[in-house]
Amino acid sequence: MAKSEKIRIAARELESLVRAMFERMGMQGEEAGTVARVLVWANQRGVDSHGVARIPRYVELFESGEAKARPDISVSRPRPAALLIDADGAPGPVAMSRAMQEAIATAKKTGVAWAAVRGTVHTGAIGYYTSLAADAGMIGVGMVAGMPNMAYTGVKGAAVATSPLSIGVPSKSRGHVVLDMATATIALGRIAQYRIAGKPLPEGAALTEAGEPTTDPKLAEIPTPMGGAKGAGMSLVFELLTSVLAGNPIITRFHAGTPEGRKHRQNGALIAVDIEAFSSLADFKALVDDTLATLKGLPRAAGTDDILFPGERAERVFRERSSGGIPVSGTVWQKLVKDAEKLGVTVPEVAAA
Amino acid sequence: MAKSEKIRIAARELESLVRAMFERMGMQGEEAGTVARVLVWANQRGVDSHGVARIPRYVELFESGEAKARPDISVSRPRPAALLIDADGAPGPVAMSRAMQEAIATAKKTGVAWAAVRGTVHTGAIGYYTSLAADAGMIGVGMVAGMPNMAYTGVKGAAVATSPLSIGVPSKSRGHVVLDMATATIALGRIAQYRIAGKPLPEGAALTEAGEPTTDPKLAEIPTPMGGAKGAGMSLVFELLTSVLAGNPIITRFHAGTPEGRKHRQNGALIAVDIEAFSSLADFKALVDDTLATLKGLPRAAGTDDILFPGERAERVFRERSSGGIPVSGTVWQKLVKDAEKLGVTVPEVAAA
Repeated sequence: MAKSEKIRIAARELESLVRAMFERMGMQGEEAGTVARVLVWANQRGVDSHGVARIPRYVELFESGEAKARPDISVSRPRPAALLIDADGAPGPVAMSRAMQEAIATAKKTGVAWAAVRGTVHTGAIGYYTSLAADAGMIGVGMVAGMPNMAYTGVKGAAVATSPLSIGVPSKSRGHVVLDMATATIALGRIAQYRIAGKPLPEGAALTEAGEPTTDPKLAEIPTPMGGAKGAGMSLVFELLTSVLAGNPIITRFHAGTPEGRKHRQNGALIAVDIEAFSSLADFKALVDDTLATLKGLPRAAGTDDILFPGERAERVFRERSSGGIPVSGTVWQKLVKDAEKLGVTVPEVAAA
Repeated sequence: MAKSEKIRIAARELESLVRAMFERMGMQGEEAGTVARVLVWANQRGVDSHGVARIPRYVELFESGEAKARPDISVSRPRPAALLIDADGAPGPVAMSRAMQEAIATAKKTGVAWAAVRGTVHTGAIGYYTSLAADAGMIGVGMVAGMPNMAYTGVKGAAVATSPLSIGVPSKSRGHVVLDMATATIALGRIAQYRIAGKPLPEGAALTEAGEPTTDPKLAEIPTPMGGAKGAGMSLVFELLTSVLAGNPIITRFHAGTPEGRKHRQNGALIAVDIEAFSSLADFKALVDDTLATLKGLPRAAGTDDILFPGERAERVFRERSSGGIPVSGTVWQKLVKDAEKLGVTVPEVAAA
């Protein structure tokens, strides 16, 4: 198969393959399954930048010791609604799923719970964790801070991270509303797509490595914050609400420039709000449906086919890819096959997409 | 004094005047004082659009019955960390301050508390409420949903509100970090400033009343969401987390177009997180200082005098205006004097600014 040839694979098959690979990397079965689930979920939702394309990066993180295959995760509850999950370098999917499960269980009693996640790596598509809350009839809110890779108003060069915010809300008949957004104008993955297409970037979306504005995707290295000072401020504040609250600051140590400060890590905060504490869940879900129906029924701007709520497009892709299989680019697939073979995992037969 | 002449008044004098006016509008002394405090705080911070310029609107809201001078506010605690404040049409400053005080008291025990605020009006500069949490050594998070006045991706015309998000965080030596941002590209007050200056608006910042894009500030009525689908999604989700959670939906009823649905109201959510649940407060504040010092010490982009954290500029204005007095535009001052005289409140002598 040519390297550029896209393949298609059933979600279940891809998940089994990825799980087996993480088991061979030393993870326990259930935890390997969680990583596989979160990565393949991103692919199923069309967020390919956060899917199986990240596996080579995990291999690196395990090899460098920045991530641990057998972490010793500890959970403490210093107050009835406050949880601290010390991830001990666990892969993000494991630490964050565990944290949201604990937050959900706690919020059943207290109404709301805040789980601080300390020292994990690569949290992936964080909409997955807020969706867990929505699955449980709760509102989920999540934020993450990572390694500085985004501009900050007035700074030359990368200053803060493209730290995402996600909010998941259950509806009655339309699945979950899942806001899942980076604080950057443009995702790094999107810059790569412009590069491949040879198209200029939108004005103001990115800087060169030296911190100069550019529209040339080949020179663009640093996305700008969404809405200028707003996205920059959100990212900075997320660092305070996650890394600083958990006593594991990233911005200060990264910019100190020491090897220790440059080691990959992420911190998160996950909040579960039990809707039943405030309202009947059925009434709430019905009102969410009404709100979405109202929005979708408003007069449309010229050239608009459909008015979408957050997560709606991803949910459509999810359904398509759950039945029709997940397309994987030739480059990503070849790399996956190579890593699988190195790990001694048998790769299923796949067809060209 | 000519109508266009700007005046200057000491913060304390302005606050006394405004308090007396709200007392004459029927409010109890302490509650009138809270409204005065929150409005004048906005002026002191340089956010004049949310300050005493709003008093005529309060007069209207009291007259129409949309706001109540003597509301019967009820507070319930359905779960240990969940609070529901039924505002009964109380002015935002009263309902939101009360809600944050309750959330702070609760979070001391539970670590985190979520206060849902149902049926208030005009919440003003919501950074005030998250600053209350920071004053108490906590992190404060606040969001509000109001009457639709902003575009939503794909909709022609106003669909959702410019609903703000605020996050307040205490530092050791630099005051509070206070993010306080609308989900719109441009504030309605800024559009008015462009109109006065006769300057074209930035491309993509606003629509006409009919929902067509415009850069003409005279035709601009509807701000666009910050970051396109991101700001639109945040605003929609804030409606779900505030109005829908509290059983007082705005979007559905507003767009139904009935007189009841068009009545002004707002709903909010305020979260207090007790830092001491996760860390020593002193350590946390010191790490916040380190983070801000690191950020402010990074190489500066061309043309940048200073790298600012959220709320830093407002804090500088606060200090200037606390010592040097608050400048008030001639138009706003004349209106205030007229309203004060109608209410039988004596207006202090002021000088031209």
